[in-house]
Amino acid sequence: MNTRQNIKYIKRCFNLALKGRGWVSPNPMVGAVIVKNGKAISEGWHKKYGQAHAEVMALQKAKQDVSGSTLYVNLEPCCHTNKNTPPCVPLIISKKIKCVVISNEDPNPQISGKGVKQLRDAGIEVITGICSEEGYELNRFFFNYMKSGLPYVTLKIAQSMDGKIGLSNQEQTWLTGEESRKFVHQMRAQYDAVMIGSNTVKVDNSKLTVREVKGRNPIKIIMDGKLSVPENSKIFRTAHTGSIIIFCDKTNDSKKIKLLENRGVEIIQLKSKRTGLLNLPEVLKILAKRKIISLFVEGGQTIFSQFLEENQFNEITILQAPVMLGEGISAFTKAYKNKLYVKRIEPLGRDVKIILQKL
Amino acid sequence: MNTRQNIKYIKRCFNLALKGRGWVSPNPMVGAVIVKNGKAISEGWHKKYGQAHAEVMALQKAKQDVSGSTLYVNLEPCCHTNKNTPPCVPLIISKKIKCVVISNEDPNPQISGKGVKQLRDAGIEVITGICSEEGYELNRFFFNYMKSGLPYVTLKIAQSMDGKIGLSNQEQTWLTGEESRKFVHQMRAQYDAVMIGSNTVKVDNSKLTVREVKGRNPIKIIMDGKLSVPENSKIFRTAHTGSIIIFCDKTNDSKKIKLLENRGVEIIQLKSKRTGLLNLPEVLKILAKRKIISLFVEGGQTIFSQFLEENQFNEITILQAPVMLGEGISAFTKAYKNKLYVKRIEPLGRDVKIILQKL
Repeated sequence: MNTRQNIKYIKRCFNLALKGRGWVSPNPMVGAVIVKNGKAISEGWHKKYGQAHAEVMALQKAKQDVSGSTLYVNLEPCCHTNKNTPPCVPLIISKKIKCVVISNEDPNPQISGKGVKQLRDAGIEVITGICSEEGYELNRFFFNYMKSGLPYVTLKIAQSMDGKIGLSNQEQTWLTGEESRKFVHQMRAQYDAVMIGSNTVKVDNSKLTVREVKGRNPIKIIMDGKLSVPENSKIFRTAHTGSIIIFCDKTNDSKKIKLLENRGVEIIQLKSKRTGLLNLPEVLKILAKRKIISLFVEGGQTIFSQFLEENQFNEITILQAPVMLGEGISAFTKAYKNKLYVKRIEPLGRDVKIILQKL
Repeated sequence: MNTRQNIKYIKRCFNLALKGRGWVSPNPMVGAVIVKNGKAISEGWHKKYGQAHAEVMALQKAKQDVSGSTLYVNLEPCCHTNKNTPPCVPLIISKKIKCVVISNEDPNPQISGKGVKQLRDAGIEVITGICSEEGYELNRFFFNYMKSGLPYVTLKIAQSMDGKIGLSNQEQTWLTGEESRKFVHQMRAQYDAVMIGSNTVKVDNSKLTVREVKGRNPIKIIMDGKLSVPENSKIFRTAHTGSIIIFCDKTNDSKKIKLLENRGVEIIQLKSKRTGLLNLPEVLKILAKRKIISLFVEGGQTIFSQFLEENQFNEITILQAPVMLGEGISAFTKAYKNKLYVKRIEPLGRDVKIILQKL
């Protein structure tokens, strides 16, 4: 197989993998294609956490003998056994696959390189690193989680062209257009959890659910040191769509806690920092322990500022609307030294989408 | 000639026309190509204000007989005589051109459609409207001037990702990168004049000259109601590179006026408005009378705000650097109702360039 073919089928794997987006976390998204005599004879993808791996699905779905064929899969096949599903490597070997083409090695220390080694030891040719940057980008939540043990954090800032997220801290200002709204719902369906601060609950009264697009609802997280969110906030009517977690200070009134718990909200009490803010690394570690590997932070200013100040983020997505507000509040309260670069810019309906990453 | 050929050669006209950018104002940029038997046999462009028109240059440069050929030119050939150069239409007719293909009709009421009519009356086939939007965009300064009698005004805002143009009104904050700096110098070489407010003179102490790229220097305009600019500002050392004009209130001290005039600065005194601001429409009319058809406004906040508030602008170019300032000042002091749309976005080195136009 030549490089061109390898790229073609690995890109097909990426597209198949994307079918699992939002459903496979904390697993990576994986797609697989089996090619025999230059023709794709079977495909598979990891559909949902706990279900079959992409390779297994492709091998099982094949309607003809797969021996002597090439298996394309964007992530190194697994070889460890202490998990829900049987390992893929022995199955690949038993099916007499001739060559395996991979985009990324699995960073999981139980696999990392061992899957490739076992395949090679069985006489299978293994080619790695095809479109590996694209593969990394596709599964950046997973790779980041494996490396840092923390969720991949994206701050989503909707602002005017002159950098205002609203006219004041007291009232909602709707700036961005329909396509941006849809994009935000898409993101909610892709990230494991969505986070806002208590003031945003009060001002925007958002449900944080996925409505504008098809997709599953994220876990909803509220940062609320003083447990000041009104019990009648719309978000508390969404407990049936998935978990709602409030992080608050230890000192809060048990009556309010009880009241919210009765509405299906989980309250996690932490010791606040001397600044009065919640301990962000502690919050992120708790989320990571619960296998929340991606977090979409929707504001407001206090929350954004804390993430930037403590350098606890991976990406900033700015949705910038073609209006000038002049007065109003910005996303951040201070200047920060975080080194950023522009990863992508594109039009989003009448708005502009700017994606920044840490250098 | 088919449409594809027409588009190809009209686009070539645009490229030729661009060679005159910065030099032909208040004339439009025009390029011309002569095509005979499917081959381009001569080209021309308007090089400099007062010099030959594109059509004339192309016809004169042709090394073979042009009779029976097609003339491509992005603007309708002129037919009026009360100007520096002889009209092009009689020359085109005398050279026995068979067909003339045009992008835009000339909005000049002395020409508008009359050039086309004279050509047709002489039996020449005339095709108009090829890539007319692109042609309009190319000569938008000229078309706007013909329509409104005012300069085309672009506000250039260099800001952080959170919409801050600086940390304060007292000190310069350098936000954007090298490519943005180069771009600004390119714009200075393309616009007839550059404008800043007195506070920007004090804080940035910019020369407003073209240094990072090749090109001619623009006319430099300072809005300074109280005539408070320091005489030792760097900009006053640039009088040899072209005119410096200060607009100020009538009430100013004649000693300071004399002092600045001795440095080669032209002082234009106007009656201020009750707000204390200079009368912007009056300023723009004075510039238009001097055949300044394009104005690049480089700040700061007071100037930007006045242009937006009075709706006296055509375009806003935002150069947005990948930094977050948190505190600081924004481009505008108030919310404005101007309807804007995003015309173009593109990366500019490490920054983002966003071009907005009025809806």
